[in-house]
Parts: sequence; structure tokens; C-alpha cells
Amino acid sequence: MEILKDRIIKDGVAVGTEILKVDSFLNHQIDVRLFEEIGDEFRRRFADVSGQVDKILTVEASGIAVAAFAARAFGYPPVVFAKKEKPNTMDEQYYFSEVMSFTKRTMSSIRIAKKFLSAGDRCLIIDDFLAHGQAALGLCHIADQAGAFILGVGTVIEKSFQGGGERLREKGVRVESLAVVSKIENGEIFFRI
Amino acid sequence: MEILKDRIIKDGVAVGTEILKVDSFLNHQIDVRLFEEIGDEFRRRFADVSGQVDKILTVEASGIAVAAFAARAFGYPPVVFAKKEKPNTMDEQYYFSEVMSFTKRTMSSIRIAKKFLSAGDRCLIIDDFLAHGQAALGLCHIADQAGAFILGVGTVIEKSFQGGGERLREKGVRVESLAVVSKIENGEIFFRI
Repeated sequence: MEILKDRIIKDGVAVGTEILKVDSFLNHQIDVRLFEEIGDEFRRRFADVSGQVDKILTVEASGIAVAAFAARAFGYPPVVFAKKEKPNTMDEQYYFSEVMSFTKRTMSSIRIAKKFLSAGDRCLIIDDFLAHGQAALGLCHIADQAGAFILGVGTVIEKSFQGGGERLREKGVRVESLAVVSKIENGEIFFRI
Repeated sequence: MEILKDRIIKDGVAVGTEILKVDSFLNHQIDVRLFEEIGDEFRRRFADVSGQVDKILTVEASGIAVAAFAARAFGYPPVVFAKKEKPNTMDEQYYFSEVMSFTKRTMSSIRIAKKFLSAGDRCLIIDDFLAHGQAALGLCHIADQAGAFILGVGTVIEKSFQGGGERLREKGVRVESLAVVSKIENGEIFFRI
């Protein structure tokens, strides 16, 4: 997606060899017009299954707006965002999965209330970043527990050198990334596509 | 907003005398079509200042999608969502405010990077819930530090009996709530408007 790559080049900041900061338009400050175009692009990438999406799954917090604008493009299926801590109002049964944050070097669990994911649900996972793949793998694990089916994973920026995309594809999961960063070095950002 | 009240009556769950669960459409599962209508309604409520909104401020996580669809209705000003923990990529200067969670009985801090809020910015605060008002007051505090101006606070559901709306109005902040719940009792939800 050219306008996305142009935006990353213009406003993204490479930190060390691992981190790409895009907080001016993607995950702290949000450019909503760009998010609309991102939603439409996911719709084009998954055009062959676009009539089959029962639910869009994501993880709080920065995945939520991306998933919501994808839902708009896919004809308004419900978005369910996994929570990172157990809120005190969530006393019902839930599915959960342990996920590792490599940047923060902590384990955490993500949860989805059982009533929002049913056997046979065909789900699209949408997120802002695909790095080591922990969030997407955790959502796949939750979908497995529910007997739901993953149509694919759509991600705004994949950092291919961290292996998450490869891990998902090895498991047979379809991955569509709107921009793929293959290397971050000396303040420069290299794209694969 | 009648369709919102109807939806709360249909799908909201009253828990004790303090908690209104709306996780099936507002803050765990999201009904994006309703969010579009919520965005449009905020635009109507703040019609007199709609051309002046430089930024929309909210707090992660469940405020993000509401704020994003409000931004769409207001002609796409940037949305900035305050973060609840310090991410390791956020090494720059930030404004912060301490906020109390009454339901979780914990203090936490919310943060916005200084580069995303400037003196003179005219901001609308948008959030899903207004209860004790801690999140909105925290964002007002952050705006004060930046020298930014708060045009008003727009909230999807105000629980008036928890006093947040009153606290904000006493400070001279304009508050527009799309539904105002005045009491939760014996599993029933009472609306003021």
C-alpha cells in the first residue's frame, strides 16, 4: 500500500534495529482518514472472503481503531477486542491465551468473553503491527478454543525480520500485510514490499 | 439519543447499583454501525464548535473507537489517545496525570507525548463512559499543562449518580452525554434523559 509506505518513510522513526515508531499516525496519535483507506485496503486484500466475515478480532489498545475501520469496509461485522487484564465487570466465562511481549519482556494474558465467540464463527484478525506474532497467535489460540475459524490475519505493518508472519504462515494461516519492513538499520527503514 | 437508550435497555446489564455492562456493543464487542451514528450525534451536539476542533483526545482502550468515529464526523482532526502505561518506545517528553479507578480501586497515570498537544490547540474530549470523571479530569489536567483549550467533553453514557459530570460542569467544562443513567437498582436502569 503505497500511501502507507510513503507515510512510514515520512513520519516513521527507526529506533535501533528492532523498533519502528509510528506514533504520529498509527498508535498514539491517529490519522482517521488513513484508517479509512487502510480498512478499504484490507477489504481489497481479502476480497475473496469478504462476504464470509462473521467477526473481526483484535487486541486492545492500538488494534481497536484499525479493526473498527476494517469492519466498516467489510459490511459491519462485530469487532471483538481481546482485553489485556480482567476487568471487574467481566465475571462471565472467557477464553484466554498467554502472550509474551518481546519489547517489554513480560508475559500477559489476553481474554475474550465466551459469549462473543462461537463455534463456526469465521473470523478475521486485524492488528496494527505484526512483529513476533504473539498477539495474532494468541487470538488464533482463543479462536481454536471456541471452535471458530480464522480466515486470515490482516496487519498494517509487518516487521518480517521478527518472524511473526513466518510463524503464522507455517501454521497455515493466511497473512496480508499492508507494508512489510524487512530491516531497520542506522535510522533507515527497508521495505520488502 | 433514542437508539442508544433503546440499545442500552435491550443489551445493557445492570450489576449491583454501580455497574452498567454494555460489553456486547460498546467496550468489548463493538457495533461499528452504532459508532458511526454516535460520531454523527456528537457532531450535532457540538455543532456550534464543529469547525474549531483541532484535536480529539481520549484514553485507551475503549475510548479509542468512539473518538475515531467522532473524528470522522468532525472532518478528520487527529485523535490522540492517552496511554495508561509508559511504552518503551515513548522516550520523549510527555504530559501526565494521575487518575483513580473507582471500580478497580487503583491509581494509574495517563500520558500524552508533548509533541501531540500544543498551546492553543482546541480539543474535544470523547470517551465511552463518564462515571466519576477521573479520565476526563485527567485529560483536562493534561490539556492545562499544554496550554490547550477544552471545547467540551462528549461521552456516550454518563452515570450521573457517580458525580463526574457535575465535577466537570462545576469547573466550567461543557459536557454532552448521549445517554444519562441516573440510577441502577434491582437490575433496572433508570435514565435522566
